[in-house]
Amino acid sequence: MSSQFASNVRPLDRALQPALQRAIDGKTKPLGALGLLEGLAVQLGLVQGTLRPQVSHPHILVCAGDHGAARHGVSAFPQDVTWQMVENFLAGGAAINVLARQAGLSLVVADVGVNHEFGPRERLLDAKVAHGTASYLDGAAMTPEQCSRAMEHGRAVVRKLHEQGCNVLGLGEMGIGNTASAALLMHCLTSVPLERCTGRGTGLDDAGLRRKLELLERALAAWPNRSAQPLEVLTRFGGFEIAMLAGTMLAAAEARMTIVVDGFIVTSALLVAHALAPAVLDCCVFAHRSQEQGHRLQLEFLKARPLLDMDLRLGEGTGAALAVPFLRSACAILGEMASFESAGVSEKSQ
Amino acid sequence: MSSQFASNVRPLDRALQPALQRAIDGKTKPLGALGLLEGLAVQLGLVQGTLRPQVSHPHILVCAGDHGAARHGVSAFPQDVTWQMVENFLAGGAAINVLARQAGLSLVVADVGVNHEFGPRERLLDAKVAHGTASYLDGAAMTPEQCSRAMEHGRAVVRKLHEQGCNVLGLGEMGIGNTASAALLMHCLTSVPLERCTGRGTGLDDAGLRRKLELLERALAAWPNRSAQPLEVLTRFGGFEIAMLAGTMLAAAEARMTIVVDGFIVTSALLVAHALAPAVLDCCVFAHRSQEQGHRLQLEFLKARPLLDMDLRLGEGTGAALAVPFLRSACAILGEMASFESAGVSEKSQ
Repeated sequence: MSSQFASNVRPLDRALQPALQRAIDGKTKPLGALGLLEGLAVQLGLVQGTLRPQVSHPHILVCAGDHGAARHGVSAFPQDVTWQMVENFLAGGAAINVLARQAGLSLVVADVGVNHEFGPRERLLDAKVAHGTASYLDGAAMTPEQCSRAMEHGRAVVRKLHEQGCNVLGLGEMGIGNTASAALLMHCLTSVPLERCTGRGTGLDDAGLRRKLELLERALAAWPNRSAQPLEVLTRFGGFEIAMLAGTMLAAAEARMTIVVDGFIVTSALLVAHALAPAVLDCCVFAHRSQEQGHRLQLEFLKARPLLDMDLRLGEGTGAALAVPFLRSACAILGEMASFESAGVSEKSQ
Repeated sequence: MSSQFASNVRPLDRALQPALQRAIDGKTKPLGALGLLEGLAVQLGLVQGTLRPQVSHPHILVCAGDHGAARHGVSAFPQDVTWQMVENFLAGGAAINVLARQAGLSLVVADVGVNHEFGPRERLLDAKVAHGTASYLDGAAMTPEQCSRAMEHGRAVVRKLHEQGCNVLGLGEMGIGNTASAALLMHCLTSVPLERCTGRGTGLDDAGLRRKLELLERALAAWPNRSAQPLEVLTRFGGFEIAMLAGTMLAAAEARMTIVVDGFIVTSALLVAHALAPAVLDCCVFAHRSQEQGHRLQLEFLKARPLLDMDLRLGEGTGAALAVPFLRSACAILGEMASFESAGVSEKSQ
């Protein structure tokens, strides 16, 4: 499955790049004066294959799942908070609801593996693979078949959103214990020392952080013949929500949607997708630099510069939601700004 | 006039701060996880004196003026670009038009001293003091009376906007040569060495930057008995647009509007306002860190952390326009997010 997924993600055709850059350079402003927005406009033009990119039907997809390892105390919050927060998403009261509304984004919440029976719910995408992963302290978190199913759910949701005309997809997650899972994935896929991958998550104190790190060291030790193959790493340590996010990214890149990457956990999913198909990065916009300590190093590993740096560390796709307006602005610069010529403005004299 | 202006700017009453912080801490998210947005929500609540702040009728005010020193070649662009860009603003084709539209902001363009006759124009606020300042190489850029008039225009526009229900005002400027003026103001008001205050503006090359610095050193030398009194500094080196911006800030703070500060030139105006009435800072939100080199040092001087850091260096209020949505989001967090209690979500367990 992985090869099928990955082989369809091709690098961008960059033939339009010079024309996009000329269009931006001709706008009534000093060369380069709109900073990161200019590179963003070029990227959107290349992803969409047009000199007039648009943000159409943008969505936030929040994937939720539980982690077997959560019962060992890797989080400051109890596992029940995962399903309680999904209920909060469905009721419209969470931060991602508020920020998605502010930015005019539709929200899709997917249950990929929450340890709870929600029953049929109008606003919840049922993608349940299991009632949470197994604990990676005792073996693999999921079976290869479960991993495939979670990734396939990502492909299915992308197909559906693409049919609806969505071309920008912000990604978020919910899952008590998932910064622990993300730290293990990051360590295995980047070789950054585990200690630097492991952070306070939702707010561990110093003692909690030490305990988390010890648990993650035990999790690594419990897998003596460790593989570096991305899907094996994902199967061993991943959460279902992370697997679904990785599948979503590969399918979205294949469909030439722009992926708005949120924080530490979503970027861990991207590390998996990137290891399978490096060209997925061409379609990624990095929303922000999270305060979760490993995120800065993930961004450095991917040579990514995020749009925002606001000390966010909430997850749920909140950083992605805050960043989507910049994509709209980048498109508007290309589509709506006057050129020196059209506005009759004199150009640089020296 | 200055004392009258400044004496009405009083520090914020902080009595509501604990209640605002409790409201944010009770929302369904880890403590502090929304980073800068949380402090912004508290600030907006304090400025507006309410637990439910709102962004109402937000505007961008762009003040435009010409500089006598521009004829000595302190800019990469010819002076005519000031009026040409004002025409571009009126036609809706400049970056600030595009970004203000994207953010749902009304735009007011004021001619405080452009070297051009626009004639009566429906969308242009006529605040003209003169056809550009005199050159500070030969004496003061403006008379004290001109300085007062420019500042009073700021007060008048704030009065009008306040009557319309505007409580958030982003500030921008246009004026070929105004980074040179801003560098001189910054040097006199912060004691940062002139060389570190002087940057490339709209895009000077190395030779142009050297020439600009030499001119500014001559401008300082031409004022041997230099005063550090802010209005005397403003009168000597200021642009009319900078004086109007300083007056706008003082009046806006007096009216408890939130001021969204753009880049290097607007922050120079704030240095003047701040020297007259330090409490003006309580009402200021810093939109971004500009790539113009002096701006970072201005922000450090004011102990300000900006929301964005996107390598912008365009002026016109473009950074302010990009930042206003964050003010709306901060208000929405306070007003719309569920609390742990209301959503039935378990709190932190360790």
